[in-house]
Amino acid sequence: MARSSPSLLCLSLCLSALLFHASQARQQWQQGNECQLDRINAIEPDNRIQSEAGTIETWNPSHQQFQCAGVAIVRRTIEPNGLLLPSYSNTPQLIYIVQGRGHTGIMFPGCPETFEESQQFEEGGSGRDQHQKVRTFREGDIIAIPAGVAHWCHNDGNDPVIAVTVHDTSSHLNQLDNNPRNFYLAGNPEDEFQESQQGGRLSRSQDEKRKRRQRQGGSSTCNNLFCGLDSSFIAEAFNIDESLARKLQGENDNRGSIVRVEGQLEFVRPPKRIQEERQLQGGRGLANGLEETFCSMRMKENIGDPSRADIFTPEAGRITTVNSHNLPVLRWIQLSAERGVLYNEAMRLPHWNLNANSIIYAIRGQARVQIVNENGNSVFDGELREGQVLTVPQNFAVVKRCESDRFEWVSFKTNDNAMVNSIAGRTSAIRAIPADVLANAWRVSPEEARKLKFNRQETHLASSRSQSFRAAAA
Amino acid sequence: MARSSPSLLCLSLCLSALLFHASQARQQWQQGNECQLDRINAIEPDNRIQSEAGTIETWNPSHQQFQCAGVAIVRRTIEPNGLLLPSYSNTPQLIYIVQGRGHTGIMFPGCPETFEESQQFEEGGSGRDQHQKVRTFREGDIIAIPAGVAHWCHNDGNDPVIAVTVHDTSSHLNQLDNNPRNFYLAGNPEDEFQESQQGGRLSRSQDEKRKRRQRQGGSSTCNNLFCGLDSSFIAEAFNIDESLARKLQGENDNRGSIVRVEGQLEFVRPPKRIQEERQLQGGRGLANGLEETFCSMRMKENIGDPSRADIFTPEAGRITTVNSHNLPVLRWIQLSAERGVLYNEAMRLPHWNLNANSIIYAIRGQARVQIVNENGNSVFDGELREGQVLTVPQNFAVVKRCESDRFEWVSFKTNDNAMVNSIAGRTSAIRAIPADVLANAWRVSPEEARKLKFNRQETHLASSRSQSFRAAAA
Amino acid sequence: MARSSPSLLCLSLCLSALLFHASQARQQWQQGNECQLDRINAIEPDNRIQSEAGTIETWNPSHQQFQCAGVAIVRRTIEPNGLLLPSYSNTPQLIYIVQGRGHTGIMFPGCPETFEESQQFEEGGSGRDQHQKVRTFREGDIIAIPAGVAHWCHNDGNDPVIAVTVHDTSSHLNQLDNNPRNFYLAGNPEDEFQESQQGGRLSRSQDEKRKRRQRQGGSSTCNNLFCGLDSSFIAEAFNIDESLARKLQGENDNRGSIVRVEGQLEFVRPPKRIQEERQLQGGRGLANGLEETFCSMRMKENIGDPSRADIFTPEAGRITTVNSHNLPVLRWIQLSAERGVLYNEAMRLPHWNLNANSIIYAIRGQARVQIVNENGNSVFDGELREGQVLTVPQNFAVVKRCESDRFEWVSFKTNDNAMVNSIAGRTSAIRAIPADVLANAWRVSPEEARKLKFNRQETHLASSRSQSFRAAAA
Repeated sequence: MARSSPSLLCLSLCLSALLFHASQARQQWQQGNECQLDRINAIEPDNRIQSEAGTIETWNPSHQQFQCAGVAIVRRTIEPNGLLLPSYSNTPQLIYIVQGRGHTGIMFPGCPETFEESQQFEEGGSGRDQHQKVRTFREGDIIAIPAGVAHWCHNDGNDPVIAVTVHDTSSHLNQLDNNPRNFYLAGNPEDEFQESQQGGRLSRSQDEKRKRRQRQGGSSTCNNLFCGLDSSFIAEAFNIDESLARKLQGENDNRGSIVRVEGQLEFVRPPKRIQEERQLQGGRGLANGLEETFCSMRMKENIGDPSRADIFTPEAGRITTVNSHNLPVLRWIQLSAERGVLYNEAMRLPHWNLNANSIIYAIRGQARVQIVNENGNSVFDGELREGQVLTVPQNFAVVKRCESDRFEWVSFKTNDNAMVNSIAGRTSAIRAIPADVLANAWRVSPEEARKLKFNRQETHLASSRSQSFRAAAA
Repeated sequence: MARSSPSLLCLSLCLSALLFHASQARQQWQQGNECQLDRINAIEPDNRIQSEAGTIETWNPSHQQFQCAGVAIVRRTIEPNGLLLPSYSNTPQLIYIVQGRGHTGIMFPGCPETFEESQQFEEGGSGRDQHQKVRTFREGDIIAIPAGVAHWCHNDGNDPVIAVTVHDTSSHLNQLDNNPRNFYLAGNPEDEFQESQQGGRLSRSQDEKRKRRQRQGGSSTCNNLFCGLDSSFIAEAFNIDESLARKLQGENDNRGSIVRVEGQLEFVRPPKRIQEERQLQGGRGLANGLEETFCSMRMKENIGDPSRADIFTPEAGRITTVNSHNLPVLRWIQLSAERGVLYNEAMRLPHWNLNANSIIYAIRGQARVQIVNENGNSVFDGELREGQVLTVPQNFAVVKRCESDRFEWVSFKTNDNAMVNSIAGRTSAIRAIPADVLANAWRVSPEEARKLKFNRQETHLASSRSQSFRAAAA
Repeated sequence: MARSSPSLLCLSLCLSALLFHASQARQQWQQGNECQLDRINAIEPDNRIQSEAGTIETWNPSHQQFQCAGVAIVRRTIEPNGLLLPSYSNTPQLIYIVQGRGHTGIMFPGCPETFEESQQFEEGGSGRDQHQKVRTFREGDIIAIPAGVAHWCHNDGNDPVIAVTVHDTSSHLNQLDNNPRNFYLAGNPEDEFQESQQGGRLSRSQDEKRKRRQRQGGSSTCNNLFCGLDSSFIAEAFNIDESLARKLQGENDNRGSIVRVEGQLEFVRPPKRIQEERQLQGGRGLANGLEETFCSMRMKENIGDPSRADIFTPEAGRITTVNSHNLPVLRWIQLSAERGVLYNEAMRLPHWNLNANSIIYAIRGQARVQIVNENGNSVFDGELREGQVLTVPQNFAVVKRCESDRFEWVSFKTNDNAMVNSIAGRTSAIRAIPADVLANAWRVSPEEARKLKFNRQETHLASSRSQSFRAAAA
């Protein structure tokens, strides 16, 4: 016993460090009153870029609700056999796969190339390829991408991949200004957030480039990282010919940032037997932090499968959360997410986000939502429909009610261990307060105070069935 | 030995993590020159709101010294049997109890209701009440309230409770803008910081509300969280009638945020035998981080009792500090405090705050204070009187001298492990410098350099008696 | 095995805490577009202050590249037997010793005076001196100074000491605004950053002081910390005469902040036998975090010695890094550094800084440098010469090529564990990507894709010899 006590003490200190340091260090660019929101709107993307094999839609990050939350949002649609070119961003990203499946490569500096072609496979070729781990993804996955880490993405399914990404521009991991940036290693992509930078005004260099493009009759811009380097430098760096070096600059490439793969994309991957795959994905419970190194770190977690639900009420719906406790990389990027489903007329009970802003993306169906600020004003009272985004600032109260067969959403939260405080239900703040305090606070009778505390036995989710039950009981 | 070394290593790493991560992550809203302070003033509250059973006074947070320090300050006076309604804030708070005693409930999401009525107690009633832990407080207590955590407060003594609260608006735990906000669950409170928001300008919604109030002849505003929700939604959420739901909105409640309890406030509390209480309060030394969970975390520490002094000089006074080493929750909210007493004409020796801004509240008596900036300019040279607030920015030099029988103060510091560097005395920076460096720096003789280092043997506090001793010795 | 698992788990948690919490919490003052850099310049200092025994040169911190990186830069030249007066800053500092050697005293509050004069040494004097640890420094040393910690510096060699200092004004450890400040305990120094504060505008008090100085015909300003305190207060605090107190204010001291020591500077120091010294400096490998306390913390690390190289390519050059893994105090101040040497025509392969801004100071020789932003624009394409500073913002691509016999530089990085991602070479992002993804991304043949991945076998550094090798092989 005595021998183990230092370990225990340490463990305890470590755990409290985990607790206390969850949610360190978000910056806020806001000098003034960015969160003095009189009105929030449910909004759809206001910019769309067509690529060869997909589209990129962005929400203007200068909307006040995104300025308050410190985020930028993108939705990418990648057609079958489309390849999202390798890029990295100055912000950490959390990606939710709304639909489809594919592979993604996330390149960590200094990590070995652990996927290697077999000798048999390419005997006559010009040498065996080897590369870093490639990960699969599928509908319902949350994928975490740290700031500055490059990644690519390929759709190897039969349906388009739809992915919604939140860039945390306020993260301390972004040491540039509050503009989201994507740095592409290849292709000739348009800047997804171009129009919103500089408050709608084009920067000088962008303007010049645009003019140059016009003069030259269209397509001869060059936007990837190699464009700013001399081709002789590139040739020397890669130890290649200058003609190949110039190909890296992609001068006449009009395919955009999502390109169509010619034939089938070939890379090393482990056998895809379903049995093995299930085993891998079910292995989450075994993760104890010991087997994970920087290079083999788990970067995704499925929160779409009903069986993964953290909160489940058969009549009302379910909620699944992912945070740094079940996906440790989130401690690094300090974001988390919640996936929810409400059945017909069910309600997500009123609550506030204790330590995070929440950005809701509506996946399916529609809901009526109310959001209340510190003055008791309703800053949003309306419908939230499929494909729309709605921000719930920290501490603002919010209630959702399904207005279709089924309402599904994903909420991105600006804290790796986001906490919610319910206002009604079995785990609510109201329930935690002595009945007599409630009676005095609201000038209600002791019996009414008890009703407020104990009439709603569900937590977080409630169906309208229980309401009729109440009507009968009352 | 070998076996225990991983534990020790770990312990060491943990401890160094504690050291290194103390004081992470304060944001500063300041873009420009908020701390280019030519003049600091000792100021009294400039706004006062009268409630049914108490008053709330605020210092305008747009004063430059508060903008520099990133704080907002409130003083609440709660009359006997007054109840401060449950609310939470977007900022972490540190509260000092200047006077009085009472109970407070701090509601943590997900924590169980651990206080339960006994079966005998309310046999004929409509069911036993149960609620989360209720804590006592008394004069001299520092209470920590994390951002977004709701709490209420009741005065069960015979004297008014006077409590001074510092909101850390620059904390990374506040993900909204730099305006302090209070979200009330009940009542119809006026916004304590209303006039200071938007730089004195009213927001549109506040203005509308004010106009509506005027049209309707006064009191029918609605400011608590339930006001922004439909009463039908509230009814459904709590599984109650709509008429009760409307009572939560407190439409005609003119009592403000501190209300008078009718009769006696009833809630579950452990027996109050003095012996037990002393035992509980004396138990601080046993706290080792093991027995504390999130739900039973210690939230307060008494720094008023003379016996708790950390620095004590019989002729000069005493200083008591509370930081994350003796109140671990402060690591979470990253604030700490110092309580001081100076006797007649004694001096708090000149020093600077190494890693924190300091906000001094004068509890009793008056002192002469000088504050010096980086240019050697005196930005404050005057009296600090009971009830006034004075900010000492990080690294600015400060000296205090008692100008009455007794000067008492509390300093709130924007770092959970605030450090002070003395300029004179036994533990001072001057003493740490070789005498010959001092002689060359100030062009004084070796003997004078030694006087500078060794003439003042006290640390932090010095009485004027030692000065006369000097006069005699010189 | 089972017994040790808590320790291991804890160890793992601790280590992951180290990993995850490295680089917490940099603030960015930038509200807007401070990093929308169309053009970066290699710049020389634009302000110069002459002191009695040295000069201080500063780069104007309002240059856009420094605003983006959140830093201020100073170069100090201390003549032999010159003493830099004791001061502290509101920002953490990282100092690189370009040339020379000397002693420095870094004063930690609360730490004991561990260097004590022997009884024999000063038997007839007015008592033995004692002071805190004094550290030696020499060419190639990186010295870390936390915010608010006072230090002095003495040149005891025969050559001038040249030291380049980066102030991290964006650090969360600076709780004032983004202006770098130096607080001097002695002397009468001019403000190094004076002209840049307030955007070139003088603050009122500075202006008044300047006017007063003009009225009084020159030198009678007073800028150290004691100037703002009453001399009677100082006398009382130090228990000295007022005439000595007035000497601390240094009214007629025109020596500036670097003064000439009269005779030899006397202080306690351990014997300087070369054998012992070597042993001490070679002891870095033994540092395991256990033997270090706050007071004896290692504050410096030599990165100039060739034998300390982390990356070495005989034909191309070498790179030495210092970060929180080999100098733990850097975890506290969250900065790190890289020292590099390129031989004739060798190249630092293109790369980006994953998680830090980088501020390059050219120590010797000259190089051609290209820097590319997220739009593929070259924001810098030119020469970087000895004595110039160039900022490479986070994620911007950069390549350097030696254009003289030898190019030497030091890069200061705004992260205690700065990571670099190579674009070319054996450990590059390109190498981590499957060849077929590259082929599709750049529309090159499979064979060309393999060349991009495998033609350059070096990491980080490559000589032009290998290029000619390529030409032969091609």
